[in-house]
Amino acid sequence: MRKIYFDHSATTPVDKSALEAMTPYFSDIFGNSASLHSFGQAAILGVDKAREQVSKFLNCQVDEIIFTSGATESDNLAIKGVIKALKKKGVKNPHVITSIVEHDAVLEPFMELESEGVEVDHVNVLSNGVIDIEDFKKKIKDNTVLVSIMHVNSEVGSVMPIRDIGKIIKKHNEKREREWKKLGAKDRDGKPQKIYFHTDATQGVNFFNQDVKWNYVDLLSMSAHKIYGPKGVGVLYKNKDVPMLALQRGGHQEWNMRSGTMNVTGVVGLGAAVALLDAETQKKENEKIAKLRDMLIDGIKKNVSNVVLNTDRDNATPAHAHFSFIGVEGEAILMLLDMEGIAVSTGSACASGSLKASHVLIAMGIKVEVAHNSVRFSLGKSNTEKDIEYLIKKVPSIVNKLRKMNPLYKE
Amino acid sequence: MRKIYFDHSATTPVDKSALEAMTPYFSDIFGNSASLHSFGQAAILGVDKAREQVSKFLNCQVDEIIFTSGATESDNLAIKGVIKALKKKGVKNPHVITSIVEHDAVLEPFMELESEGVEVDHVNVLSNGVIDIEDFKKKIKDNTVLVSIMHVNSEVGSVMPIRDIGKIIKKHNEKREREWKKLGAKDRDGKPQKIYFHTDATQGVNFFNQDVKWNYVDLLSMSAHKIYGPKGVGVLYKNKDVPMLALQRGGHQEWNMRSGTMNVTGVVGLGAAVALLDAETQKKENEKIAKLRDMLIDGIKKNVSNVVLNTDRDNATPAHAHFSFIGVEGEAILMLLDMEGIAVSTGSACASGSLKASHVLIAMGIKVEVAHNSVRFSLGKSNTEKDIEYLIKKVPSIVNKLRKMNPLYKE
Repeated sequence: MRKIYFDHSATTPVDKSALEAMTPYFSDIFGNSASLHSFGQAAILGVDKAREQVSKFLNCQVDEIIFTSGATESDNLAIKGVIKALKKKGVKNPHVITSIVEHDAVLEPFMELESEGVEVDHVNVLSNGVIDIEDFKKKIKDNTVLVSIMHVNSEVGSVMPIRDIGKIIKKHNEKREREWKKLGAKDRDGKPQKIYFHTDATQGVNFFNQDVKWNYVDLLSMSAHKIYGPKGVGVLYKNKDVPMLALQRGGHQEWNMRSGTMNVTGVVGLGAAVALLDAETQKKENEKIAKLRDMLIDGIKKNVSNVVLNTDRDNATPAHAHFSFIGVEGEAILMLLDMEGIAVSTGSACASGSLKASHVLIAMGIKVEVAHNSVRFSLGKSNTEKDIEYLIKKVPSIVNKLRKMNPLYKE
Repeated sequence: MRKIYFDHSATTPVDKSALEAMTPYFSDIFGNSASLHSFGQAAILGVDKAREQVSKFLNCQVDEIIFTSGATESDNLAIKGVIKALKKKGVKNPHVITSIVEHDAVLEPFMELESEGVEVDHVNVLSNGVIDIEDFKKKIKDNTVLVSIMHVNSEVGSVMPIRDIGKIIKKHNEKREREWKKLGAKDRDGKPQKIYFHTDATQGVNFFNQDVKWNYVDLLSMSAHKIYGPKGVGVLYKNKDVPMLALQRGGHQEWNMRSGTMNVTGVVGLGAAVALLDAETQKKENEKIAKLRDMLIDGIKKNVSNVVLNTDRDNATPAHAHFSFIGVEGEAILMLLDMEGIAVSTGSACASGSLKASHVLIAMGIKVEVAHNSVRFSLGKSNTEKDIEYLIKKVPSIVNKLRKMNPLYKE
């Protein structure tokens, strides 16, 4: 059977060039990068190259790159590690801001901090899934120390105005600095506390500029397996001025921020995958994928009645198309499409299997019953016009079949 | 130049069969194992097979296996995760026991707990690097809740009496149960608190039976890259009755104990590597390696004067040979051997580059200056008699050359 993959937001296949880069490191250049001998030094060369590839992509220094086991670890480290360091420095009553539509890898660490007495605020989103920047501004307080806003929402693909958020935070930090300078010498104790800005860029890396200076970002999480690299490896970028304490402790690797034997092969694959993401390639790929995405959206809208598009094309990645097919369980569509060889998702892969309605859709003001009617199509490198044609041929009959089985459904 | 690797305790090359098992999972069976469609289900099959391979090896249930990014993560999770859970359950004054010769991945989490008020005791070792079981017995207290003792020391290769420790803990738990039953009904509040036994088995997996029931172990850490599997993946075995809270939070993977997209490829490679470790193969390999190790030790002793063997062959793995070459810096030997294509270590790879004398050797009663004279040879599958012959030819001249450069050295 023909197999078509429309679930690139869940994971991607390893690109040929990334796999080729990795291959020698399994059994030939297999040294521990902490070893002093030639086997170890050969492994370090691979890691160093990857570090340069990533630091070039993010426009940061090589010693601002912390290799991790993936974006979930990066998010946990950024959020809990920074608050841990600030508390140790004596920050008494930290306030943090995140959004209501973050991935669980961000929401859960904040829940953990909240249970330890940290004050957590969640910014609302507009009906298109983009965060409400006015609401964000209102939520900044004198004791705010950390903001974590994702670059792209994994479900509907909405793109957050990361750079605008970064600028607002920068201005706020400058204001704190000015006010501190105005104080008399005897009141000027230490430096004013900054607000640090973390973004989980996992879903944005394929499509958008991740220059941390341009985006005014202090901490950035990303994962290799979402960008045609291997699973089990990720990055936390941490600006060198951001205080942070390690969570995983041991052999003091990664500037003492992340202990554990370096996953040399994974890191080499990550570097090679990142190296494919130059601005020009990204632009070309985005145009190609957007064209397919538009073909998909237009085809579904034309051929299926009573369908709601939850992705706002003007404020989303070129790869996302998220629909609610009224009167039909998203999971049922997923299953029937799967039987036709087509892979889609009902939300983020991490939460699949859960019967709870997506917190993202609910935050966008979508009714619970409509949220359950949802299917996400996320496009990628491998997709072709033929894939879209095949999909558009299959979806209407599946939806109609399922609607006929629902006695409550009325056109 | 001929290249010989005597640093298998630092890391090992990926075995051909493990790499073959992994290969399809990079770009073909690339699904996210949390996805419901066929791509995800195919990935789950790979993970499930690995889980069965590991659970068979450890003689435990499949849902007692938590896949992690490596032994460092497993150690952190076991130690901090259990104490976190016990504190949440209301355990007021937890006392924990570890040994003075653990890896930093165990020592550091305990230091972290100590800074948070947990009472930590370190068991001493005998001069052969094996823990002093009498000292261990004395250190158990009424409020002891966790014991973490490594299976094998990575530096000198000393084997700890894991099974005896497990039995002592079991007896202690039974005593607590008996005393609790003797109490009057109104004093019998809840169940008596158990002592849980964690072992970092990373360095023991290649050589010894890791049946958790036979060893009376409640928690066990291991890493794939020490057993001819890939880097970046490991296991925490957790007996289902042990309370534990996750450290890395997010998408609720691994029974909610370890969030993050499953490293499918890594896990498949880990499973395949473990599958090679059946009792019979282990026995044969151990015999082969012990013969080479004896050849190495006898050859060095015969050809180099003033050398101390720090490995007690009767209480060590068959693969370790740790020497102090009096009057010569271990690092200098490492460098000159490396120039001859021979890879050795001065201690654990994680601590290499550090100028501090090994905490393990100091704990064994070795003088600081002698500790600095140390070189570890750790043998593995690839080594042959020819390797040993080549080594024995090279070592004496290197040691003599270095000794001549040391004006303080006297025979």
